[in-house]
Amino acid sequence: MDDVLLTDKNPLPDVLPERLAAQLRFVVEVDRLKTVVRQSPLVAAERRENDAEHSWHLALMVILLAEYADEPIDVGRTVQLVVVHDLIEIHAGDTPLYDTVGAETQVEREQAAADRLFGLLPADQAKRFRDLWDEFEARQTPEARFAKAMDRLEPLLLNWMSRGGTWHTPGVTADVVRARKSVIADASAALGEAARAVIDEGERRGWLRPSP
Amino acid sequence: MDDVLLTDKNPLPDVLPERLAAQLRFVVEVDRLKTVVRQSPLVAAERRENDAEHSWHLALMVILLAEYADEPIDVGRTVQLVVVHDLIEIHAGDTPLYDTVGAETQVEREQAAADRLFGLLPADQAKRFRDLWDEFEARQTPEARFAKAMDRLEPLLLNWMSRGGTWHTPGVTADVVRARKSVIADASAALGEAARAVIDEGERRGWLRPSP
Repeated sequence: MDDVLLTDKNPLPDVLPERLAAQLRFVVEVDRLKTVVRQSPLVAAERRENDAEHSWHLALMVILLAEYADEPIDVGRTVQLVVVHDLIEIHAGDTPLYDTVGAETQVEREQAAADRLFGLLPADQAKRFRDLWDEFEARQTPEARFAKAMDRLEPLLLNWMSRGGTWHTPGVTADVVRARKSVIADASAALGEAARAVIDEGERRGWLRPSP
Repeated sequence: MDDVLLTDKNPLPDVLPERLAAQLRFVVEVDRLKTVVRQSPLVAAERRENDAEHSWHLALMVILLAEYADEPIDVGRTVQLVVVHDLIEIHAGDTPLYDTVGAETQVEREQAAADRLFGLLPADQAKRFRDLWDEFEARQTPEARFAKAMDRLEPLLLNWMSRGGTWHTPGVTADVVRARKSVIADASAALGEAARAVIDEGERRGWLRPSP
């Protein structure tokens, strides 16, 4: 993708105040998140999920499952973290959880993408969005830990519903999945146990390769 | 759609505690929102938007544009309102803004859909989700007014970017659009003015029919 903005092709009316114009250009630009396709299969349709759908699903799960957080969380703030968490994939692309090659360059690619995307915003808001994204990535707050747990739990449920999904990725075994999903238990013992039950039963049914 | 749940075809492991199992069945069931297609065209791809993508986009806009609310709003709560606001369309379907026939039965259809969908949740959470949805619909709080404003502003921007979009619906003229978008100004004079500028310029360019 080049540096042409979507609004470059059809600029917004030029009577808008500059700060608002920059914000609305950003609103249009992030429409691209709806085209970043993930590995996870939808349950309700025969296609893969995109990042916008995924981010919405996490937001709903935060509202629904917050009661299982082991530390008290601010639900509204946690929802904001998940709404923003994948924006940088507009430039960096999705790095699937089981893609070990992509993971090597992931941090660098995502940092550059964050500079580029949030740089479209007025400086104060660029910082605010960057702070939300950094908080999510660092997992040092109860809100960020819970947000990350949702980010791991949602695809687990989608994989279960498709009787395997990305569990069929070469090299993935039950123990690999258990290790990747351990961050769920960092936020919630109850949800960590539920994730474990799904993985164990998936392995028992042969939807997930046993560990060697 | 019948009353079969997505998880009926592939139940979650039966070791889960019943309350959590009900919540996770709901998480899976709402995957259907990703298949409820709206009229609005995406900017970044040649297809129409779905409700999950739309809900995510509104959530992001709340975070980005909250500073324009004329009354102070709780951003986290407003984000929750938009995340939940279209869930009932899983059963009621999307009623396009310019569909006057569908509008006649919309309230009744949506109330029935809310009973049915939220009824899947434990009673306390069914009430919480219903309260969020009722708050959004009633527009009696600053948060609900701002959420509704985002719900009207987002498709306006998508229509602008496609040089018309649903403005080409038969019977729609600039004045019809102005009337429908007046709820934006109820939440924010600045955003109401911006919407007005987009509509005026759209009419001037012939992307929107002039009023008779």
